[in-house]
Amino acid sequence: MSDLHLDLQPEVALAGQWFDHLRQHSRSRLGVTRASYGEGEQMAHDLMRRIASDLALAQRLDAAGNLYLTLPGRDRSLPSIMTGSHLDSVPEGGNYDGAAGVVAGMAMLARWRRAGRAPQRDITVMCVRAEELSWFPAPYIGSRAAFGQLEAEALDSCRRPDTGRTLAQHMAEAGFAPDRIRAGEPQLSAERIRCFFELHIEQGPVLVQKGVPVGIVTGIRGNLRYRHCHVRGRYGHAGAEPRESRQDAVLAAVEFVHRLEALWIAHETAGKDLVCTVGRFHTDTDVHTMTKIPGEVWFTLDVRSEDNAVLLELDRELRRMAEEIGTQRGVGIDLGPYTNALPGPIDRAHRNRLEALARSLGISAISLASGAGHDAAVFANCGVPTAMIFVRNEHGSHNPDEAMALADFAQGLRLLVAAVEDIDGRALG
Amino acid sequence: MSDLHLDLQPEVALAGQWFDHLRQHSRSRLGVTRASYGEGEQMAHDLMRRIASDLALAQRLDAAGNLYLTLPGRDRSLPSIMTGSHLDSVPEGGNYDGAAGVVAGMAMLARWRRAGRAPQRDITVMCVRAEELSWFPAPYIGSRAAFGQLEAEALDSCRRPDTGRTLAQHMAEAGFAPDRIRAGEPQLSAERIRCFFELHIEQGPVLVQKGVPVGIVTGIRGNLRYRHCHVRGRYGHAGAEPRESRQDAVLAAVEFVHRLEALWIAHETAGKDLVCTVGRFHTDTDVHTMTKIPGEVWFTLDVRSEDNAVLLELDRELRRMAEEIGTQRGVGIDLGPYTNALPGPIDRAHRNRLEALARSLGISAISLASGAGHDAAVFANCGVPTAMIFVRNEHGSHNPDEAMALADFAQGLRLLVAAVEDIDGRALG
Repeated sequence: MSDLHLDLQPEVALAGQWFDHLRQHSRSRLGVTRASYGEGEQMAHDLMRRIASDLALAQRLDAAGNLYLTLPGRDRSLPSIMTGSHLDSVPEGGNYDGAAGVVAGMAMLARWRRAGRAPQRDITVMCVRAEELSWFPAPYIGSRAAFGQLEAEALDSCRRPDTGRTLAQHMAEAGFAPDRIRAGEPQLSAERIRCFFELHIEQGPVLVQKGVPVGIVTGIRGNLRYRHCHVRGRYGHAGAEPRESRQDAVLAAVEFVHRLEALWIAHETAGKDLVCTVGRFHTDTDVHTMTKIPGEVWFTLDVRSEDNAVLLELDRELRRMAEEIGTQRGVGIDLGPYTNALPGPIDRAHRNRLEALARSLGISAISLASGAGHDAAVFANCGVPTAMIFVRNEHGSHNPDEAMALADFAQGLRLLVAAVEDIDGRALG
Repeated sequence: MSDLHLDLQPEVALAGQWFDHLRQHSRSRLGVTRASYGEGEQMAHDLMRRIASDLALAQRLDAAGNLYLTLPGRDRSLPSIMTGSHLDSVPEGGNYDGAAGVVAGMAMLARWRRAGRAPQRDITVMCVRAEELSWFPAPYIGSRAAFGQLEAEALDSCRRPDTGRTLAQHMAEAGFAPDRIRAGEPQLSAERIRCFFELHIEQGPVLVQKGVPVGIVTGIRGNLRYRHCHVRGRYGHAGAEPRESRQDAVLAAVEFVHRLEALWIAHETAGKDLVCTVGRFHTDTDVHTMTKIPGEVWFTLDVRSEDNAVLLELDRELRRMAEEIGTQRGVGIDLGPYTNALPGPIDRAHRNRLEALARSLGISAISLASGAGHDAAVFANCGVPTAMIFVRNEHGSHNPDEAMALADFAQGLRLLVAAVEDIDGRALG
């Protein structure tokens, strides 16, 4: 019997009410604000606990304050199916980034309860703490803490800008146990998780542009980030210095960025996933003038791919290119150090399952990479077979104009419910 | 008898003393400072008047404070030969920018006096006021005022940054007559000037790089200046937005500047004089971040050529290019308005004379464009046959490290003296 996905109207209506509740209770000046380990996030956790009580789910809070709401399976010794997402938001953000994934999970469990059925194995919705970087500048705090992977230093060095207090202080004040997190004590075991599915609004424009409500994620892009690329040439007289003797930092940086774009296009043509962004690019605002050959330029570089090998190879090419351009132009192009966030590999079998189910259920869906990071990447890198479902969303995320239609959410939910039914119904693997 | 140039040692020694006097009496924290209509400039004028008295030269001050020191000719009705330059400096500048041209003129007149000879026609050294833009932001104040061309508005709108007082106030305080300048009353008549020669230190590095003490100027470059080029794209998520749908302002501006450089090289290959500088180039420092596709860029553009037709044609090409790149990339590239300073055409016959004399006198010289503007450009654009002699100078100008060897100055002086003797000795034309 795999038919829970056929009738989800009551649960979609419930989801609508839950979204309304979340919005009403975290409304701020322009949008919604749910600070990590703050009031808004706690309000959302409280709502999920009330729903869980109504559904008679098992509840567990871990040392970092992550909440696990479980529909017990018939054989509780089996690895569980997990889904979920985070319940914090950026300041003045939208209502759906994160929350949609938790609400979808709860709606799914409500459907199981309404059917009066128990799954073969536990199905758990995880309400992840502190995913947004705006509050504490460390990635994936809740999910990494759950796997015992949060570096101890982050607990004491990350301070919330609005309170000035550290992550450890906030955790403790909220009743959790930062010392157990500092000790690296795992709150979750990857071996005990059959799979992790995260439903999330798309943060880019692709589904809107393609007119499709649902996306099936092919991979969560990792990144290389160069925060301090620096070109050092020589200032000179704009009129009196001939082209051949100039050491023009802007022309050198321009050639570098233009060739980076050409490399990017070549990668695309070869079918390799890659996006590149030079978000900051500036001459020295203290000394640059219209009539001086520019002697220095700084820029940033953010390159992302589903495939870390593509990133590392690109780094080698970029450094060769910087060396070559620098030599030709008599300037120094120093890309500086990078940080490397690993891609989150999507489990091929689960992705195939989602694509097949979308086709057979008549859910209009396309496959696309996730350009932003997600808690799912942490699960994937811990070895949990992981997949993600995107729901169409207008105006991007992290802003008050974020807009997801409930009808689109319903399509994503249907796919999630169908996939979990399918996995749970199969012979134990 | 054209032999004054053969023996200039005493005058070169005098010139050395005059340079020392100028430096000692205008020394400031790092270099020398001779403000337009300020103490340092007046000190230099006072020195030249004392020298003129010693040489029994005719002296005239015009309504703008320009000083004309004249060795009377045998026929004073003939148009005079003029030389000279300015006596102000930038704040914390060097000792030679401007002053070298006046000192050379005075050394030349000293040589005529030592020989006990009178020229056929008047030879006048002009001490020009207020050439440097640092003090009052209007170009060529003294020389344009001399020709009745200084716009009245500049007198009241330009204020010296250190005093806050207007150009008109400073002129009046120094004893001059801004109202006559405001009325456009000419202080000089182009028809009464046979030719104008300006000796000046080179402000670029060409003579140093080529190892040559003297340059003969082929033209004074005019410019087009675009102060507010603006690219408007759309901010977006650095990871989640595919390349095809991005409206990346940096990539568009980068393509524009890269293609500008290619155009520049094509012009050079075709033998057209051109230099191009993008001195400022920056994303929005308030909102740009590493992880946002940049939505806006501003840059400046300074293009210079001896040939104004080259500049105006380039403007048309650049606007076509901006339109094309903008359309392809879905961004707006607005170059905004430009200002156009006309090139100062160098008289071909005088330039030929200088080149021929350098060869016959064994003065090592090359021909090159002047990238910076000079008072000579005002004379040239008023129809006075004009030429310029550059003297090698290390470390560029407008800075305390400016360095001209007296031996190099002596070579430039020799060429000036020989040219003026030659012109004066010829049949009246």
